[in-house]
Amino acid sequence: MTTEPFAPSLDPFLIRPLVEAALREDLRSGDLTTEALIPPELSGRATMNFRVAGTVAGLQLAQTAFEMLDASAKVELLAHDGQGVEAKTSVLRVECSGRALLSAERVALNFVQRLSGIATLTARYAREIEGTKARLADTRKTTPLLRLVEKYAVRCGGGKNHRYALDDLILIKDNHIALCGGVEAAIERAKARIGHSVKIEVECDTLDQVGRAANAGADILLLDNMPPDVLKQAVEIVAGRSLCEASGGINLTTIRSVAETGVDLISVGALTHGATNLDIGLDVEL
Amino acid sequence: MTTEPFAPSLDPFLIRPLVEAALREDLRSGDLTTEALIPPELSGRATMNFRVAGTVAGLQLAQTAFEMLDASAKVELLAHDGQGVEAKTSVLRVECSGRALLSAERVALNFVQRLSGIATLTARYAREIEGTKARLADTRKTTPLLRLVEKYAVRCGGGKNHRYALDDLILIKDNHIALCGGVEAAIERAKARIGHSVKIEVECDTLDQVGRAANAGADILLLDNMPPDVLKQAVEIVAGRSLCEASGGINLTTIRSVAETGVDLISVGALTHGATNLDIGLDVEL
Amino acid sequence: MTTEPFAPSLDPFLIRPLVEAALREDLRSGDLTTEALIPPELSGRATMNFRVAGTVAGLQLAQTAFEMLDASAKVELLAHDGQGVEAKTSVLRVECSGRALLSAERVALNFVQRLSGIATLTARYAREIEGTKARLADTRKTTPLLRLVEKYAVRCGGGKNHRYALDDLILIKDNHIALCGGVEAAIERAKARIGHSVKIEVECDTLDQVGRAANAGADILLLDNMPPDVLKQAVEIVAGRSLCEASGGINLTTIRSVAETGVDLISVGALTHGATNLDIGLDVEL
Amino acid sequence: MTTEPFAPSLDPFLIRPLVEAALREDLRSGDLTTEALIPPELSGRATMNFRVAGTVAGLQLAQTAFEMLDASAKVELLAHDGQGVEAKTSVLRVECSGRALLSAERVALNFVQRLSGIATLTARYAREIEGTKARLADTRKTTPLLRLVEKYAVRCGGGKNHRYALDDLILIKDNHIALCGGVEAAIERAKARIGHSVKIEVECDTLDQVGRAANAGADILLLDNMPPDVLKQAVEIVAGRSLCEASGGINLTTIRSVAETGVDLISVGALTHGATNLDIGLDVEL
Amino acid sequence: MTTEPFAPSLDPFLIRPLVEAALREDLRSGDLTTEALIPPELSGRATMNFRVAGTVAGLQLAQTAFEMLDASAKVELLAHDGQGVEAKTSVLRVECSGRALLSAERVALNFVQRLSGIATLTARYAREIEGTKARLADTRKTTPLLRLVEKYAVRCGGGKNHRYALDDLILIKDNHIALCGGVEAAIERAKARIGHSVKIEVECDTLDQVGRAANAGADILLLDNMPPDVLKQAVEIVAGRSLCEASGGINLTTIRSVAETGVDLISVGALTHGATNLDIGLDVEL
Amino acid sequence: MTTEPFAPSLDPFLIRPLVEAALREDLRSGDLTTEALIPPELSGRATMNFRVAGTVAGLQLAQTAFEMLDASAKVELLAHDGQGVEAKTSVLRVECSGRALLSAERVALNFVQRLSGIATLTARYAREIEGTKARLADTRKTTPLLRLVEKYAVRCGGGKNHRYALDDLILIKDNHIALCGGVEAAIERAKARIGHSVKIEVECDTLDQVGRAANAGADILLLDNMPPDVLKQAVEIVAGRSLCEASGGINLTTIRSVAETGVDLISVGALTHGATNLDIGLDVEL
Repeated sequence: MTTEPFAPSLDPFLIRPLVEAALREDLRSGDLTTEALIPPELSGRATMNFRVAGTVAGLQLAQTAFEMLDASAKVELLAHDGQGVEAKTSVLRVECSGRALLSAERVALNFVQRLSGIATLTARYAREIEGTKARLADTRKTTPLLRLVEKYAVRCGGGKNHRYALDDLILIKDNHIALCGGVEAAIERAKARIGHSVKIEVECDTLDQVGRAANAGADILLLDNMPPDVLKQAVEIVAGRSLCEASGGINLTTIRSVAETGVDLISVGALTHGATNLDIGLDVEL
Repeated sequence: MTTEPFAPSLDPFLIRPLVEAALREDLRSGDLTTEALIPPELSGRATMNFRVAGTVAGLQLAQTAFEMLDASAKVELLAHDGQGVEAKTSVLRVECSGRALLSAERVALNFVQRLSGIATLTARYAREIEGTKARLADTRKTTPLLRLVEKYAVRCGGGKNHRYALDDLILIKDNHIALCGGVEAAIERAKARIGHSVKIEVECDTLDQVGRAANAGADILLLDNMPPDVLKQAVEIVAGRSLCEASGGINLTTIRSVAETGVDLISVGALTHGATNLDIGLDVEL
Repeated sequence: MTTEPFAPSLDPFLIRPLVEAALREDLRSGDLTTEALIPPELSGRATMNFRVAGTVAGLQLAQTAFEMLDASAKVELLAHDGQGVEAKTSVLRVECSGRALLSAERVALNFVQRLSGIATLTARYAREIEGTKARLADTRKTTPLLRLVEKYAVRCGGGKNHRYALDDLILIKDNHIALCGGVEAAIERAKARIGHSVKIEVECDTLDQVGRAANAGADILLLDNMPPDVLKQAVEIVAGRSLCEASGGINLTTIRSVAETGVDLISVGALTHGATNLDIGLDVEL
Repeated sequence: MTTEPFAPSLDPFLIRPLVEAALREDLRSGDLTTEALIPPELSGRATMNFRVAGTVAGLQLAQTAFEMLDASAKVELLAHDGQGVEAKTSVLRVECSGRALLSAERVALNFVQRLSGIATLTARYAREIEGTKARLADTRKTTPLLRLVEKYAVRCGGGKNHRYALDDLILIKDNHIALCGGVEAAIERAKARIGHSVKIEVECDTLDQVGRAANAGADILLLDNMPPDVLKQAVEIVAGRSLCEASGGINLTTIRSVAETGVDLISVGALTHGATNLDIGLDVEL
Repeated sequence: MTTEPFAPSLDPFLIRPLVEAALREDLRSGDLTTEALIPPELSGRATMNFRVAGTVAGLQLAQTAFEMLDASAKVELLAHDGQGVEAKTSVLRVECSGRALLSAERVALNFVQRLSGIATLTARYAREIEGTKARLADTRKTTPLLRLVEKYAVRCGGGKNHRYALDDLILIKDNHIALCGGVEAAIERAKARIGHSVKIEVECDTLDQVGRAANAGADILLLDNMPPDVLKQAVEIVAGRSLCEASGGINLTTIRSVAETGVDLISVGALTHGATNLDIGLDVEL
Repeated sequence: MTTEPFAPSLDPFLIRPLVEAALREDLRSGDLTTEALIPPELSGRATMNFRVAGTVAGLQLAQTAFEMLDASAKVELLAHDGQGVEAKTSVLRVECSGRALLSAERVALNFVQRLSGIATLTARYAREIEGTKARLADTRKTTPLLRLVEKYAVRCGGGKNHRYALDDLILIKDNHIALCGGVEAAIERAKARIGHSVKIEVECDTLDQVGRAANAGADILLLDNMPPDVLKQAVEIVAGRSLCEASGGINLTTIRSVAETGVDLISVGALTHGATNLDIGLDVEL
């Protein structure tokens, strides 16, 4: 066994409620067209195909959608999540009842298109910073109710997940610092309240704050909207005592210069909020 | 009273489950930072501001988020959904407990950013076809679990909603036609099964199909991926017997020429699946 | 393949939440009698039998109930939903654990008795208007939480479904007309707001309204409480421009004369709100 | 204070999930007609009126429906559940937003019509046995998911509730007796398993069983399908040791003769499964 | 077949929602450690072992937990619920995917540890009163949301269940008696309201109340905090007309003397609220 | 403002679903006794009183229970969560309808008794290690479905929370190390997969593992079942590079000696799984 990561995957237990809710949203009282025109005993086959090149994400969601409408559906994954594929690549093959095939089609595609869109965009960002020590991270700017799978898609694209929710990291901002009477007091109060498994991050707008937060024992510094030369100075001031996270308005054009400042990570909200669906289709044969 | 439409609005009863689920997704076991650093008795104020120009959508979702965490929150809408605003416009003012303000911030923004992104994109498409008889429509290519509010955002942007789910329109495609032995047989079978309040749409790839479907009494024809000159012929063949809907690969560059063919409506999946979040911020004062 | 409709059926995915809720309502903390007196390893057999003649509806709900309590239950349908059967006809045979058999019995029967009651009543109404062009339709006067299956039962009995809910048809009544300043203005405003897949129905109490609504492009006219001779005049005025729906106080005695006026459809609330359970039993052999 | 019972009432906490589910079933993505035609600021008034004489049940469900769609709705109950009223009696007055009024109307009526139908039928049965010692009871033959309110409606009509679910009474039937090797063994085994707060009822088809079950300490005997003269003998055999319950095929014509046999209670499934909706309307003024 | 009770068991249908909620509480967005370090194709084995002697309860909950995360898990119960086992006894063997094994471990243990703790404590109480006619009963002092399984654990330990909830027994206390103007009036009013399947219990603090409640036909008397000699007098006064239940501050030291007074049952809140988790481990082999 | 922590509190938004579920579990179809005997218009008062000395936790849950059954309930907290109180201290006063008071009583008490039991036990442990640098932490050995409030109760008692769920900390155990081929490889693989906001803890059974894990950059070392002298050596080896957590079989007698070894934290499962309910009563006045 090597230290190679396994292909990312989503536990069916975790995604089942999401896929079921999506199917109920689309089916409501039933698929009228299918019930009227497709004989119940007819079976069908289909392949899901990338029309453009991209990074795959969310195939288990599609698989679960077909299986939920036809317990005897046979689904074969022809690619794995996280894999980069060329245009015209088949990523999934399904054989099931014709009714289930047509009724689940839109939900299956909506998931894979959106998640592969995120993974593909993430992979583009990640490629830009290859060779630097910086890691790429997402934010909480995800579509409401889809955080589980959108953060998963970021991992498929080669990104890392920042905090999942408001309860797994302390993030101290300017308002907090002002209320507590200084960055040291804010960190002290946070440490007095939280458990030892939670990290503390402090948002810094100036190099003075950077020094004080690192001195006070912040685990991570959020270096907000700093240009590369300032970031470089911040990294030197910190000198490894805290992780340095660059954030704010970073795009595909600027991310390389940010990464080369020596920051540990770069968080980019656009990975999730700026992604659009990838062009992926289901070719059906009844 | 005139026939002017009211500003679009979302009934709180309809969106409450969605906002609650989004808050639970983000809060999980609680907002650690806020609980550690913000005194419970502190109150705060904030305004939500468009950083860029755009069309407003989703303010009630933001309002509901603040009210859910603080029953005595005072929220004032400074713009209405559907309104086009300039950059640096304040669209909502909230005064509530500081804890509720910070804990609801991300959810409130995630909703308004995404929905205003959709409304803004829709408005751009709608402007392109002004003066023609064509109406702009969305599709079922929405984010899973958010169809209710994404289709609402399309209306805010001046678009129309195509069918909501699989149970409120019959849409006959090539597979169905082949299975039934012809477009006439398929329409006949559909009519025999469904109620009188449901319309029947038929996907047509050729002008021959167009004529046969119109003859057979289809309410709507989905003219799939036809170039403008063919669309124009289709409209002439139909001669008002059915609604003509153009669909497939239409973008901001091509939509005008499509609209000028005389089709009744143009459906564009990109309104929802190709929109990105609009840059909108919450400026907090504790 | 012919255009014959398939036997109606309910997708298990759609009814599972309903059957599960019904079982939890009846079992609560468990079936005390069964747990105390029936050995867990005992298996049993039963047939479900119509004690009177009627039209079958809801067998999948019974099947699902048994399968939910015993995943290895074997259920055989001896009739299909929509089939008319004589008294003393067996419609379902089940073999499963004795505990599951007894614990699911009441829920299985409550569903089939109520739905077959509706289907049987619907079939009686439908027979009355055979040979006319009129179709029979239900209303929204269904038992709360059971609309999905009660409207299905109407289809089993040969009826058509009117709108499912408040979001799939515009129905303009006198109050709306008064508020909008006339039937034409009301229709115009409705058309300006809704998508092209939604039909517009207008309630008409007078022949004057009938003419104006048909002129204004209403898809359906609800002819409310009109006697047959007035209905006949309405049909003539409309002359095929809109569908004519007769409604209001129509019963088994009067429906034929209504149908013979030439209306397109007749909606009868009693199909669901006036039906009583059919006498159906489960004969158990442990 | 006297021992007079209070008017029956339903705790809002108990019915809220039911009313909410019913509203969501009817509204789905929204009330299209109301949103298109009714200005949001318009308020309205309505009274709910019995078109026929009957017994009132379910007014709190209607009240809750209006309040759920308009938190500032003012609802006044003009009658109380359990009250017998004449035709043309107003039982509820509501003043709220016009949109809420129209959107909640159908759900409010569906509940009150069905529950008042049950209460009215129950009251007719109850009147037949006035002056005898027999009490009238319902069964578990209720509409799935509505047991809570249908059993409440039986109480409104003057009936008593038999067991609510499978976990609050032991009911030993012939199959159980056969499996246990006799009525005495079955009762003994049941007593060995259950707590002291649960009663034991035994179904008896013969007078021999009646004697043995009473001897063995059954709390209640279910005298199934016995004619009045046999019931009378059963009552004599029991001599007050157990409660005697007559059941099976009892209708309005036969119930008096059954009650005069001296049985303690008479259970009638038709109270719930044989009731139809009462004619009740909402007269709206916008 | 004898009248021997079967081993107690929990129907999977009843516990599935509970186990699923517990797994979602523990897994949230996924088991990070397992996903990072355990290959998905690895399978594992484990045995669940009692570290101390005790009474087994809740094995089906553990079984369900493993099966929910791995549908092909093989679980073998090596003991049955209600069985007393020695320290170092293996009670369950599971073979499933290594990921499912580790992810379900804590939930499986938390259930079995708590429920076996309750069963073991109950069994100790039950042993103390062996040979008397008194039966041991629980109360409603259970952990919120776990009543179903905690009352089941009491049965596993040899106890009986008192009422499950507020709707399956009338329990008249001093406040009620004062409000109604006397114990007789309170019982009368209760009988006038409830069905015949519900028992009536009256809390008695004095021997005078005991006599009056028995005379008035109470099914059960709750003899609250009475010393053994007073209990004995109460039993004599009642003379079998009602069941006598001793309650209040009874512990392992005093329960025998209470049981010897001749009371029918003794209810002990500590069975559930005073139990601690039993030391039980899962020995894993990957 | 000082760095003093605020009194701990639970956001009503977070606990509402829990309290509602607990009330529905106890009320089911309604509180029979209250409905039969308490007039709806009667109001009442009560105080919640500690019968023994202890640490308060969970008052908001009680408050929410009363408010849920009576929206106009007036609840006054006489103590705050986290406060140590003497026996016979009143901690909450409520005035509401008599029905709500009696129906919510058991749920309110069950929550406060259990949570105060945990807080009180935690406070005893915490007192034992006062003056050392060690902090006290809980584990995931909580009652299923109650983790949110049980971990809150630990904070009320002066303890810290260890990880909340399987997704907010990496915890590498011996099985993982064996599978990965060594502690260094396991840590490396974990770091390659997770985000920067997640800490990594490694379970160490030997001093050799301690050194290797600290060298490899583990954030926390779980020193499992080590006697004090070995713990002391481990602390010296680590020399501040990682946090040292002592765990395994630590009780009130041994915890002081563990704390004096210089470890950073001590986790004790018994805080939650070994706590019993505290004796707290509600004294009602109707």
